[in-house]
Amino acid sequence: MTLTAVKTKTSCGNFFEDFHVGQVIRHGTPKTINEGDTALYTALYGSRFAVQSGTAFAEEIGYPYYPLDDLLVFHVVFGKTVGDISLNAVANLGYSDCRFLMPVYAGDTLSATSEVIGLKENSNGKTGVVYVRSTGYRHKEPGNPEKVLEYTRWVMVKKRDENAPAPETTLPELPEGVSEDTLGQAVPELSIENWDFDLSGSPFRFDDYEVGEKIDHVDGMTVEEAEHQLATRLYQNTAKVHFNHHSEKNSRFGKRLIYGGHVISLARALSFNGLGNAFHITGINAGRHVAPLFAGDTVYAWSEVLDKKRIEGRSDIAAMRLRLVATKDLTCGDFPYKNEEGKYEDGVILDLDYWVVIPV
Amino acid sequence: MTLTAVKTKTSCGNFFEDFHVGQVIRHGTPKTINEGDTALYTALYGSRFAVQSGTAFAEEIGYPYYPLDDLLVFHVVFGKTVGDISLNAVANLGYSDCRFLMPVYAGDTLSATSEVIGLKENSNGKTGVVYVRSTGYRHKEPGNPEKVLEYTRWVMVKKRDENAPAPETTLPELPEGVSEDTLGQAVPELSIENWDFDLSGSPFRFDDYEVGEKIDHVDGMTVEEAEHQLATRLYQNTAKVHFNHHSEKNSRFGKRLIYGGHVISLARALSFNGLGNAFHITGINAGRHVAPLFAGDTVYAWSEVLDKKRIEGRSDIAAMRLRLVATKDLTCGDFPYKNEEGKYEDGVILDLDYWVVIPV
Amino acid sequence: MTLTAVKTKTSCGNFFEDFHVGQVIRHGTPKTINEGDTALYTALYGSRFAVQSGTAFAEEIGYPYYPLDDLLVFHVVFGKTVGDISLNAVANLGYSDCRFLMPVYAGDTLSATSEVIGLKENSNGKTGVVYVRSTGYRHKEPGNPEKVLEYTRWVMVKKRDENAPAPETTLPELPEGVSEDTLGQAVPELSIENWDFDLSGSPFRFDDYEVGEKIDHVDGMTVEEAEHQLATRLYQNTAKVHFNHHSEKNSRFGKRLIYGGHVISLARALSFNGLGNAFHITGINAGRHVAPLFAGDTVYAWSEVLDKKRIEGRSDIAAMRLRLVATKDLTCGDFPYKNEEGKYEDGVILDLDYWVVIPV
Repeated sequence: MTLTAVKTKTSCGNFFEDFHVGQVIRHGTPKTINEGDTALYTALYGSRFAVQSGTAFAEEIGYPYYPLDDLLVFHVVFGKTVGDISLNAVANLGYSDCRFLMPVYAGDTLSATSEVIGLKENSNGKTGVVYVRSTGYRHKEPGNPEKVLEYTRWVMVKKRDENAPAPETTLPELPEGVSEDTLGQAVPELSIENWDFDLSGSPFRFDDYEVGEKIDHVDGMTVEEAEHQLATRLYQNTAKVHFNHHSEKNSRFGKRLIYGGHVISLARALSFNGLGNAFHITGINAGRHVAPLFAGDTVYAWSEVLDKKRIEGRSDIAAMRLRLVATKDLTCGDFPYKNEEGKYEDGVILDLDYWVVIPV
Repeated sequence: MTLTAVKTKTSCGNFFEDFHVGQVIRHGTPKTINEGDTALYTALYGSRFAVQSGTAFAEEIGYPYYPLDDLLVFHVVFGKTVGDISLNAVANLGYSDCRFLMPVYAGDTLSATSEVIGLKENSNGKTGVVYVRSTGYRHKEPGNPEKVLEYTRWVMVKKRDENAPAPETTLPELPEGVSEDTLGQAVPELSIENWDFDLSGSPFRFDDYEVGEKIDHVDGMTVEEAEHQLATRLYQNTAKVHFNHHSEKNSRFGKRLIYGGHVISLARALSFNGLGNAFHITGINAGRHVAPLFAGDTVYAWSEVLDKKRIEGRSDIAAMRLRLVATKDLTCGDFPYKNEEGKYEDGVILDLDYWVVIPV
Repeated sequence: MTLTAVKTKTSCGNFFEDFHVGQVIRHGTPKTINEGDTALYTALYGSRFAVQSGTAFAEEIGYPYYPLDDLLVFHVVFGKTVGDISLNAVANLGYSDCRFLMPVYAGDTLSATSEVIGLKENSNGKTGVVYVRSTGYRHKEPGNPEKVLEYTRWVMVKKRDENAPAPETTLPELPEGVSEDTLGQAVPELSIENWDFDLSGSPFRFDDYEVGEKIDHVDGMTVEEAEHQLATRLYQNTAKVHFNHHSEKNSRFGKRLIYGGHVISLARALSFNGLGNAFHITGINAGRHVAPLFAGDTVYAWSEVLDKKRIEGRSDIAAMRLRLVATKDLTCGDFPYKNEEGKYEDGVILDLDYWVVIPV
């Protein structure tokens, strides 16, 4: 056994030159999401959307059981991809065309695969951009995985060896947003007349919102180290920067960085106050983590209605396109966003463009 | 869309003039309490009462399954009322006549309503006292909610507009304590001969306690920010003061305040050491949060036996009325309570008067 | 009621003179381990072994359901013993011959007993060593407890009264390691051809490891107060030093001490990176907590393959004996262990000698 052999059992993740276009990676550790995950999700974010909170409300409107929060599904699928795709990432550049395709319930097992759909080495020769299309599956019957989620993501990844030759540049076509064909696809036909607007916690439905309307979600939530670490481990996300104070104290920020998905979940939970009936995320057009969040910071959020669409063939629900902006240590009564030069204002940490559905 | 319209989607809670006597409020977000909630409850407080810890002990004595901790039920029901009743509260003044009416199990969905039973504007014209009777229901069959819990609570709530006219003063009759008729109502007939005093963790039964007896529960538990935040979000309690460091750092206390129910649960869990067989809270006569608790503080507790009652028709269990006193950063060997002038001693944070049942 | 009577309801644990050889203690509070416990376990340690992560992988290879993490079972059984055995312990001296005998699943109820198998008073007359053989049982059918775990542990316990006479010294025979007869006993016959080395997260099987091979697990995990408190309460472990800042700030260390089992679980979870298919702990030969861990410290780990054994009659799995070393605030690329004088190097906190099984 040589010293080299000593180290080979440990995975240090893939580097830029390990990827090639067309490569399909089956990620490790299928995870059964159980009722403990849902309880922890509530404890971590305080989410109150009625459909995901309990059987009584969900069954009354036609779900067989109360479905999981969409973002819990996203985080678990995303978590599986980290060890293969972004362990050596310098930066998460963006994601797009994320679609939720099927309701997921406690007891379902999720797995994930990613296909490399684009590569572009940076001119510095030290890093490159990897584009992947990741897919989450649920496994109810052996041998019959069903797609529950798919999204495109691009990350800047280090090269292992700066002298390795650059691959041919391939840039995928990225749609501007989620296809409107799939809006609401994960929602069964609902007995929307049974939707109880007292129990749901909000009186507002599709027709009550106007394009251009801005909503300050008012409340703030402070994040502790233990909380984001519990969350990110629950998702089996292995990105080192979230967990290791000993190494991160010498990093650029001098401390642990909070998983960006934690911010999305916090902002989404805060958005209940103003969007209480917007119960399901049907797709994410684009998302950007504008600035990092650290333990001790307080997250606020506001939303803007960007668009509204009826869904063909459905009289129960319709879709709204929303911008969800999260800030840190900055209240949102003035809807902080970008300055006149188009740059994000100080304190803005998340800019998410996504579709929800809401009762008609 | 006017600037006013911009803000209307966000609920800022009810103010004093929004309440009227006889008003019934159906609160939002029915929640299914699942096995994740029970595991988190154990992780948060370390409770060890055998009946609530597992199927084997509970089924041996006649429960169909292990019931939920009574206080978990209380917190979830209470949590639902916060957004409508106490979001603009200046102070929680008290609660009384709280009755646990039925066992609740993992899988049950809980909802809550409140009836306004009293109103009294304060002489300063800025605030008023709102009295509500809140009821928790479980939903096992559609259309057939069953009462599991009820209690009276009164809070001092801000007026939105100091010039709004004062309502007629209505003061509800508050019973001095829980009616003794309902003691033990939530406990099925037990095969008490199967109660195993080794496995329950305590050898003491009804006859071993004397009225006037005081018990120091000895152990102390330090509370962290992440812990009380996880707990309070799990209960979907939206009181702002528990979660927002950014705003609370400028408050009277300069920091986040811990939910009073968290203190009750900690003290109850500590009381296992000395009251290990007092497995069920059947009612709360009165409770007072004497002083606030903050993260970093350590909670201790002691109990006094105030009364003992046999329950008519039952030879399995009997009732004890207890005073549960919690302190912070103060051990309880000397049973700290009130000084000669009747004022609570420094360090006392909770004074709870409640009924438990225990094997005969 | 006298002042003495006042204090007797509270258990202060057993002292050295309360133990006698042959004594069998049935510990309190049988606990049903549910899906909430498994979710919390994942959130606390980020464990990723595929067999314990979900039904799909586990059922594919022949388990009826996904089994609990072995260390979760250990912690719950161990937790039950603390109140009777080690509440007055000065030091945990060691444990040995720990065997995992049967798979345990969510929904199983665990209880524990301990038999005193040795006693030796120390020459100072103030303390003595108590040796116990503890056994964990699961209760699926009433009246038919099944052994799931057993281990020997010895602790130094205070005397209540220094003048109490010393018991006759009895030293148990401690095996050097777990009997090799029971290796893999808790693993059903597996359809190992269905083991998917992509989904398991590691390509390495029995034949890929060599005796003497050392593996740096690379990643580090920082521990927060809230995390280890949640864990230790989840296990219903009542050792005071883990929870009480108010008393521990005056202790030798000046702060709360983290439960040693928390370190083992962290190190085991980190060891996934390099030992991803070593899915089951079949026995622990010996374990030593070399130095304490405190909140804020970062845990790293490395492993050495000490031995390899085929298991008679099994072609699906084989056994590896591993040394698992954990450190704090010290990376493990140089495999820190003992210096030339045989003393542990600074930063080493755990030295665990145990057996795993892995696909052949």
